[in-house]
Amino acid sequence: MTDRREFRDLASPAEARAVIDGLDIAAGTERVPLADARGRVLAERVDATIDVPGFDRASMDGYAVRAADTFGADEADPVTLDVVGTVHAGENPDVDVAEGTAVEISTGAVMPPDADAVVMVERTTERDGDVAIRTGVAPGDNVMLSGTDIAAGARALGPGTRLTPREIGLLSALGVDAVPVRSRPVVGIISTGDELVRPGGDLDSAAGQIYDVNSYTLASSIEEAGGAPKLYPHVGDDFDEMERQLQQAAEECDLVLSSGSTSASAVDVIYRVIENRGELLLHGVAVKPGKPMLVGEFEDAAYVGLPGYPVSALTIFRTFVAPAIREAAGYEQPRTEVVTGQMAVRERYDEGRRRLMPVGLVEDGQGRMRVYPVDKGSGATTSLVEADGFVEVPADTISLDAGETVDVQLFSPEVRPPTLLCVGEDDPLFSRILDRLDRPRYLPVGTTEGRRRLDAGVPDVAVVAGPTDSDYPVLGEWEREWGLVVPAADNRIDGLAALVDGDYRFVNRGRDSGLRRSFDDALAALADERGETRRALGDAIDGYGLTTKAHESPARKVAAGAADAGLGLRTTADKLGLGFVSLGTQAVRVLANPERVEKAGVEQLERALDDLASLVDAEAGFSLNGR
Amino acid sequence: MTDRREFRDLASPAEARAVIDGLDIAAGTERVPLADARGRVLAERVDATIDVPGFDRASMDGYAVRAADTFGADEADPVTLDVVGTVHAGENPDVDVAEGTAVEISTGAVMPPDADAVVMVERTTERDGDVAIRTGVAPGDNVMLSGTDIAAGARALGPGTRLTPREIGLLSALGVDAVPVRSRPVVGIISTGDELVRPGGDLDSAAGQIYDVNSYTLASSIEEAGGAPKLYPHVGDDFDEMERQLQQAAEECDLVLSSGSTSASAVDVIYRVIENRGELLLHGVAVKPGKPMLVGEFEDAAYVGLPGYPVSALTIFRTFVAPAIREAAGYEQPRTEVVTGQMAVRERYDEGRRRLMPVGLVEDGQGRMRVYPVDKGSGATTSLVEADGFVEVPADTISLDAGETVDVQLFSPEVRPPTLLCVGEDDPLFSRILDRLDRPRYLPVGTTEGRRRLDAGVPDVAVVAGPTDSDYPVLGEWEREWGLVVPAADNRIDGLAALVDGDYRFVNRGRDSGLRRSFDDALAALADERGETRRALGDAIDGYGLTTKAHESPARKVAAGAADAGLGLRTTADKLGLGFVSLGTQAVRVLANPERVEKAGVEQLERALDDLASLVDAEAGFSLNGR
Repeated sequence: MTDRREFRDLASPAEARAVIDGLDIAAGTERVPLADARGRVLAERVDATIDVPGFDRASMDGYAVRAADTFGADEADPVTLDVVGTVHAGENPDVDVAEGTAVEISTGAVMPPDADAVVMVERTTERDGDVAIRTGVAPGDNVMLSGTDIAAGARALGPGTRLTPREIGLLSALGVDAVPVRSRPVVGIISTGDELVRPGGDLDSAAGQIYDVNSYTLASSIEEAGGAPKLYPHVGDDFDEMERQLQQAAEECDLVLSSGSTSASAVDVIYRVIENRGELLLHGVAVKPGKPMLVGEFEDAAYVGLPGYPVSALTIFRTFVAPAIREAAGYEQPRTEVVTGQMAVRERYDEGRRRLMPVGLVEDGQGRMRVYPVDKGSGATTSLVEADGFVEVPADTISLDAGETVDVQLFSPEVRPPTLLCVGEDDPLFSRILDRLDRPRYLPVGTTEGRRRLDAGVPDVAVVAGPTDSDYPVLGEWEREWGLVVPAADNRIDGLAALVDGDYRFVNRGRDSGLRRSFDDALAALADERGETRRALGDAIDGYGLTTKAHESPARKVAAGAADAGLGLRTTADKLGLGFVSLGTQAVRVLANPERVEKAGVEQLERALDDLASLVDAEAGFSLNGR
Repeated sequence: MTDRREFRDLASPAEARAVIDGLDIAAGTERVPLADARGRVLAERVDATIDVPGFDRASMDGYAVRAADTFGADEADPVTLDVVGTVHAGENPDVDVAEGTAVEISTGAVMPPDADAVVMVERTTERDGDVAIRTGVAPGDNVMLSGTDIAAGARALGPGTRLTPREIGLLSALGVDAVPVRSRPVVGIISTGDELVRPGGDLDSAAGQIYDVNSYTLASSIEEAGGAPKLYPHVGDDFDEMERQLQQAAEECDLVLSSGSTSASAVDVIYRVIENRGELLLHGVAVKPGKPMLVGEFEDAAYVGLPGYPVSALTIFRTFVAPAIREAAGYEQPRTEVVTGQMAVRERYDEGRRRLMPVGLVEDGQGRMRVYPVDKGSGATTSLVEADGFVEVPADTISLDAGETVDVQLFSPEVRPPTLLCVGEDDPLFSRILDRLDRPRYLPVGTTEGRRRLDAGVPDVAVVAGPTDSDYPVLGEWEREWGLVVPAADNRIDGLAALVDGDYRFVNRGRDSGLRRSFDDALAALADERGETRRALGDAIDGYGLTTKAHESPARKVAAGAADAGLGLRTTADKLGLGFVSLGTQAVRVLANPERVEKAGVEQLERALDDLASLVDAEAGFSLNGR
């Protein structure tokens, strides 16, 4: 089997598509109540079995007459008819319209016998049982004849019609209360990996457990494509368990997906099961991230094995599997929504494989689209929400230059670029401001990296904290109190000197963080005072080199009992019920990309920043500048 | 109240929008399981409560090492380390990595203590408990540190985020199995009218009953906009019943819609109920078909009264009500999908009111969009599926000329013009051909009107039956047997002469029908034979002037016992189990618009017509020409 595991013969993307399109995953047909039919696809033609309307129907309020009786009538010379009765909608008319008579009639009512037209009420005057008709009408005027809308036997809707409210309206008119529709193909999902835990379950991180991302991501993607997802319990690399599960899924589903079965041993097991009971049709596609994709058939079900990393699994699912599910469900393929934009940065490639590169989008001030790669490692789940689509990069591309035009295939036609792209320091107050905006995107890359990206012209705004100077327009500015987060009621550490001199476990922030820069400045000041170097003081702190990426992480280590002090904010200490040793305040500034200050999203942010005073009051340890 | 019923002060569309936007129809919030969260809208921000990953994680299969031990290693000069253990994904590592040692590690596994990098397996060679490392690695290489993807305390998703599979993936990664989302606003639907019957119920057409179209159409439109529809039983014009029903709906719903309450008496009742218990805010909008729209508030619920005709109700719902429901549900307003096209025909206006004119779309051969009005009377339900959107026509427009450019607002962004627009004679065999095409549109307007529209250049093809000559390209041609459909086992009528001479109730087809033309030709031939006029023979047939629009209608009158003979096809007689008196065969031809023969939909039709022979064999009374 070794040759297979080496993926010697990777299929081309077109071959992979052809193989998957050739799989039989169509389900049968079923009848559903009309009330549940929205979005379903008609399995058969529906012909009208009744006439609509089912009777000659008045289409105006007025008087049912014999048209011949009104000939020559006009405003100056009305014709007077004897009113012999009334008929409302939903009534069986109990009177004929003899020559010289009229019947008062409501819109929607049945035309009484021998009447052939309706005079609208506005052109009549009734008095003492007579009606003066002030206009002539022709036979058929203001009457909808039986079957004119649609007649029994006529074609109403063709097979394959997707039922929207409009088709549901027509079916209602025909009295249809249940319709034959295509069944949704049942798609089983088996996530493999001993380390997976369902969301909501308890996680043992020390044992390397992680929450299962692919099961729900794929389930909702399958629904979106018109399939009915069915989740199976996770399986590990145990052959018997895997075989039992695959077999059960194959019996119950039209298509079985597995994800994460990319370890050599799992691949071995899946190979054996598929080849024992069916046929493996394809192993590996020459596109990054499709290398480990498997396609086969067994026990009357189709099978596709997806990569384990969430972004990879979703990209491969959308590219190769979703079209086949849509086809089986009778859904139309969505218009491939392609957005053209310019690369915001340069991107280099080192491997000769076609690549589906996840990218984010941001509109510049002139409404042009700028495109930046989102590559946090395939294992990152945050890439799922930070990317808007992907760029297909041919195998022989060495680099894409900044400014180069690329086509971005959106993850779905509904995807819209964020209204505002913010990068920089994580700040609880700014996070509250974001809560008030429509569809902002925030990348917490820290002050230094945020500033770097702003210099490159990618984001709309950067949030920077700590000592900084810049020529960028400042949209907003506030102060936050920073220092050491310590256990509640633990008074051992009373300042920076105590941390340096004592024997405490400390947790620091990374160099990109503005907090870290203020901390290092304070350390340098203390070193100056003592005639030592900052480095020496840093070395004296146990954990100075132990950095964390996110702003609450040091405090949380303290809360967990894994550290005696952590670099952080007063507001975080308050939130987590911990003690706090203040070391000062630092400025937080929202810097704008000067070319984007007139962009709608930036203007919305500016309006939200007008309300800074009330936000500052609500958050512990924050103040406006100069107060 | 009279002044109100006269709609003296119609609001402008903008005023109406403002009033409806001001209604409070937002529902609260609720928690839903992650599995049911697709499409829902987050009610609150979700911050990460755990680090992802929750441990330092190997991102490659290989060996966990101390990076320092590998410095200087390369292909020519590998470093050999002692392999002291193995750790797989989902395992708690039970061994430390001391200097000079390595631990075999799987992708996703926990880094063992004291290891700070992973060497990928491809750059190593294992033998006899040792591993040769053929590359140097730096600390952190091939390791994803705890919290790097997202860390506890970090902002994950903002309030108002619509949950797609991508956000569901991120929530899964955070272990979230239930999310706080906005509740769907509950929207009650009360259809008014004594004549309404729910689809599936028995219809008494003689009493003017019709199926209720608006309840299901509105229910599915409400769902589409993010609301939860609630159907109430129909009510008539009875004040107490209407009041009870409106009151109950107001207690149970955030918004109550009524439709069809446009008769003066129903409006009176609704007025009284709304004004007794709340406030009427608006009555009538200066846009056709919005005149009868009512807007109000009562008992803590919002209220909108819609017109009764289905197309009007749906147009007003989409234009004024759906945006408010979307807003309350937290859905984004769809990109107004506007298609620009040229009027295919001239359209005149006689009334000074802004109009939302329903139109259909058809692509011409060059991919340009042509726009034609769909106006079958507001009461027609088939307009629902024959229109693709509407054109807003200003109040002062007298006419739109053929060729004039107009903007069409699609009924939804998903709307696509039909692949093929066919008009003309209704023919059972052609209907089967249509079943094989993707999204064709067929308008059964008859041979004469179909030919007229083809002459005007609107449709892609026209189906014509009976004696005809034309220079249009013929895509397909067959013969069908026509004659008199009579009751089963009724041999009284044996030909046209018997019909003319006997005392029978006959049902004819309209003049647009190709069948009628063949019938009139046969009548003319008989008249010639007898030395009489065709008109005289027609007058001798009881019901000669009784015409029907649809091709099965005469036969169905015979089946219902309401006639002794009807003009029709052998295949219809067979289908309905009736007798048939053949009067001849007539040609059916599919004529193409010469400028559209290369259009994809027309080419698909041509391919389907290649299979005519098998279709002809399957349908009674059909044959190919010349056989």
